[in-house]
Amino acid sequence: MKIAILGTGAGGRCHAAKLLELGHEVIVGTRDPDATLARTAPDHMGTPPYRDWLAAHPGATVCTFADAAAAADLVINGISGDHALNALTAIKDQLAGKTLIDYAVPYVYQHDSAHKWPTPWGFMPLLDPVDSDSLAEQIQRALPETRVVKSFVTQEQETVVDPKSIGGGDHTMFVSGDDEAAKGRAAQLLREYGWTDIVDLGPLVTARGLEMYAHFHSAVGLALGRRFGVKIV
Amino acid sequence: MKIAILGTGAGGRCHAAKLLELGHEVIVGTRDPDATLARTAPDHMGTPPYRDWLAAHPGATVCTFADAAAAADLVINGISGDHALNALTAIKDQLAGKTLIDYAVPYVYQHDSAHKWPTPWGFMPLLDPVDSDSLAEQIQRALPETRVVKSFVTQEQETVVDPKSIGGGDHTMFVSGDDEAAKGRAAQLLREYGWTDIVDLGPLVTARGLEMYAHFHSAVGLALGRRFGVKIV
Repeated sequence: MKIAILGTGAGGRCHAAKLLELGHEVIVGTRDPDATLARTAPDHMGTPPYRDWLAAHPGATVCTFADAAAAADLVINGISGDHALNALTAIKDQLAGKTLIDYAVPYVYQHDSAHKWPTPWGFMPLLDPVDSDSLAEQIQRALPETRVVKSFVTQEQETVVDPKSIGGGDHTMFVSGDDEAAKGRAAQLLREYGWTDIVDLGPLVTARGLEMYAHFHSAVGLALGRRFGVKIV
Repeated sequence: MKIAILGTGAGGRCHAAKLLELGHEVIVGTRDPDATLARTAPDHMGTPPYRDWLAAHPGATVCTFADAAAAADLVINGISGDHALNALTAIKDQLAGKTLIDYAVPYVYQHDSAHKWPTPWGFMPLLDPVDSDSLAEQIQRALPETRVVKSFVTQEQETVVDPKSIGGGDHTMFVSGDDEAAKGRAAQLLREYGWTDIVDLGPLVTARGLEMYAHFHSAVGLALGRRFGVKIV
């Protein structure tokens, strides 16, 4: 299958690497391919330059967001929550009719004190939208011809592509969306990744619960000091 | 131990019944004891009148919120999220120095369309506060001499008092709070209820994650059509 990953950050790299390993054709979309490939230093998050990653993962094609979406059967949104809606709206035509899996948390990265979560561990962004709306629903409203599925969002992407790395894989992943066939494609991809327990939460409005789960996930991860799975019993 | 349960709703009744069974002295607080005991019909939620429950659970004392808090070593807040802050602030003196376990979700019960979550299953209240604050932190700020612990909130109270009813009890409960001794007392109570996996999330600010978890919990419960546990793997 031709799968586009939009975004060249750490999460998108996890998916691209795993999908190449699984034998899929991987097309990586980035805002400005020349700029992405020209970078030679780690970014502000410490992520190594993409050219280094690409050299270690032959087979992936890098192009614009629009070209990646146009070429693919299935699209994974790896653009961060604060930029996703604008970036996806700009390639609305290329995404029409396609399944789009979105795992972004709509964090607001405003580094003033009013937007910090004053924990001992420092900065914690707020969510926007929250509670009365979700990023997934915003994307679906902006792209009515795209089949939006919210998934992957309750986990680090390292764990999403390698569920067996925690508890032998005996934990749960969730899908949410208004299109049954699109959720089926997302679930199929999850099974290829190694997930065996996948819960369909129903319509896309339930993405509110998945996005708001982010603070719980952070709190548990910080308390335990390690990655973890959540299993529905 | 003398334990006060504030509130006579279904959740509070679960705790009162279990604590009596465990041999604790149970004091139930209600806004107006005469009115509570005079009621002979189920309330708008279908909960049977308290006098019927009391007849089936001899040993519990019913009095005002203030008298219940004053008489107890440990207090469990079973007052609904939209009334809890006002009701607890009114008995601030009686709660000074005590451990208060709060499991309320700060749902806003405004039955206009702007405050509905338009799911197929109908009404879903929003949360207030959400994301930038939590009810537990509001209570702690209003009652600085009380040791507030957020717990129980990720589950139906039927499950909190009977964890073994799901998956043989192999699932996880969380405590959050700024006072270590108070969290220890809450964890001890949870062990008496049958919990074996209790995760301390750290300071009370993590209650934001526990309260915002409510929509995820609702979505999973409605998708599965049954009660469930969540196990950290």
